[in-house]
Amino acid sequence: MNEFELIARLTRSLPTNRSVVVGPGDDCAVLDVGLPDRLLLFKADALVEGVHYTPAAPPEKIGHKALARCLSDIAAMAGTPTAALVTAALPASFDAAHVEGIYAGMSALARRHEVAIVGGETTTNPQRTLLSVAVLGVVARGKAVLRSGAEVGDALLVTGELGGSLAGKHLEFEPRLAEARWLAQNFHVHAMLDLSDGLAGDLRHLIRASKVGAELLAPSIPISLEARRAAKEQPSSKPALLAALTDGEDFELLLTVAARDAVAVLDGWHKQFPDLRLTCIGKITGTEGITIRDKQGVRPLTANGYVHFSQPE
Amino acid sequence: MNEFELIARLTRSLPTNRSVVVGPGDDCAVLDVGLPDRLLLFKADALVEGVHYTPAAPPEKIGHKALARCLSDIAAMAGTPTAALVTAALPASFDAAHVEGIYAGMSALARRHEVAIVGGETTTNPQRTLLSVAVLGVVARGKAVLRSGAEVGDALLVTGELGGSLAGKHLEFEPRLAEARWLAQNFHVHAMLDLSDGLAGDLRHLIRASKVGAELLAPSIPISLEARRAAKEQPSSKPALLAALTDGEDFELLLTVAARDAVAVLDGWHKQFPDLRLTCIGKITGTEGITIRDKQGVRPLTANGYVHFSQPE
Repeated sequence: MNEFELIARLTRSLPTNRSVVVGPGDDCAVLDVGLPDRLLLFKADALVEGVHYTPAAPPEKIGHKALARCLSDIAAMAGTPTAALVTAALPASFDAAHVEGIYAGMSALARRHEVAIVGGETTTNPQRTLLSVAVLGVVARGKAVLRSGAEVGDALLVTGELGGSLAGKHLEFEPRLAEARWLAQNFHVHAMLDLSDGLAGDLRHLIRASKVGAELLAPSIPISLEARRAAKEQPSSKPALLAALTDGEDFELLLTVAARDAVAVLDGWHKQFPDLRLTCIGKITGTEGITIRDKQGVRPLTANGYVHFSQPE
Repeated sequence: MNEFELIARLTRSLPTNRSVVVGPGDDCAVLDVGLPDRLLLFKADALVEGVHYTPAAPPEKIGHKALARCLSDIAAMAGTPTAALVTAALPASFDAAHVEGIYAGMSALARRHEVAIVGGETTTNPQRTLLSVAVLGVVARGKAVLRSGAEVGDALLVTGELGGSLAGKHLEFEPRLAEARWLAQNFHVHAMLDLSDGLAGDLRHLIRASKVGAELLAPSIPISLEARRAAKEQPSSKPALLAALTDGEDFELLLTVAARDAVAVLDGWHKQFPDLRLTCIGKITGTEGITIRDKQGVRPLTANGYVHFSQPE
């Protein structure tokens, strides 16, 4: 049983109540606690030594990543993060300076996005450090963007460049908070998520939630320099396009808008965020599954995203 | 460096913002997100296999405890829990039925207290299961009870009976949510926390936060049957009073009220909760530290609570 199969079993019959607008299965839970104009966003995520980072990673970057992953999920709903709690589960032999470095990295990111770190706890995890972060955010009523809103004919857009994140980006990426809010405030974004499992895997999540299909345009997929370089320099590595499709931890936004809005979105974006790419990489279709179009024609995409339980380090 | 020293270093300069009413250091963080009549409570807590429970513990009880610890912190603020996120970090060889049992125990407790489980994630922790739970709650403005409100002369009260929790109660305790809300709604509770590190250790947290001292009345301290039995039957175990003072994981409420209110609180309690003890165990003093009074006189209390990093299993 892999991670997704287990989650499907565990989330079949979880308790709910009147406050729940969106429960398990989207980037964040959405809660209505009676704020007149806003809904709450609620998300937790863990970072495990030897699984999500190597012990040699600089502690500031470990802390940055632990919080950035949660903030990226808040971005994926077009929300604004408010406060975070940090649980640090540490080996008994923890190095205080290392732990302080982790907190320094987390704090620097939190300050940039005006997020308060309001507590948490330290506990023991004898063999390895594990950081669990919970984030609370807010989003204007009617502005939360779910995974489930994609419509047949929508244009499929992605920020940034994909693949090769493990070469460094996964420890340094900046969550696309301002970008996501700008998109949701200025356009009708039908569906959005952040890429953590790889484009192929996460697009599958989006089309399943929206009960649609998707067609990718192979030549349009923005491939990172790292993925291109690895493919060129290391003959044993994935072809660059495959890396862009299946490497995890890109933490870019994948979104859909009505086809008639796509040009306006792209034009506006390039003025607003001239240093970050936004690329149309395909469209939403009415046929189940994902296909990919290149000069040889259209084929089903079978490559899957990174599944945590199947490929632990 | 132990847990409390590390936390003191880590929480010296964490980022904050306008929403923060109470940051790190109390049972929960308290946030003002603009609800006209209420504040939010935010808490996270982790449960680690081999540290907080043995691998032989029934999975339903493990799940119960993981959530109950957070709900007990919501109770300690006199709040009402709304929603929880659960991060399950599992060995690659996880047993699906065991994990489902954990979720069943958590879900049963959540249903009793009308808490929605709105998501979370599963990830890998190769050597042992670690459960991290984050809970969001609400409390009426002006009704959150902090650790810092104790006043000289206050009566010190405790619910239930103390000591010997590891014999079983730590896996089964019911968070004192209704009891705490009743107390805060009907009386002016000056300070409150839940006992997780042991009476001596947690009382020290309360008096430090309130900048006061405390005197315990040894004969008044309610000692659990388990602590008495262990002291009698196992010559190597702690004296029963010492167990009640220093055993961790009681998850009872420790609170202070003005001395003039103490009789009314105790009277009202016994009518409202006839099956649960509420006991006056001492008073708040103006002298730093904790003293304990018995028939031999008054002595400083040196016994400390359970400190997680010093006594890992």
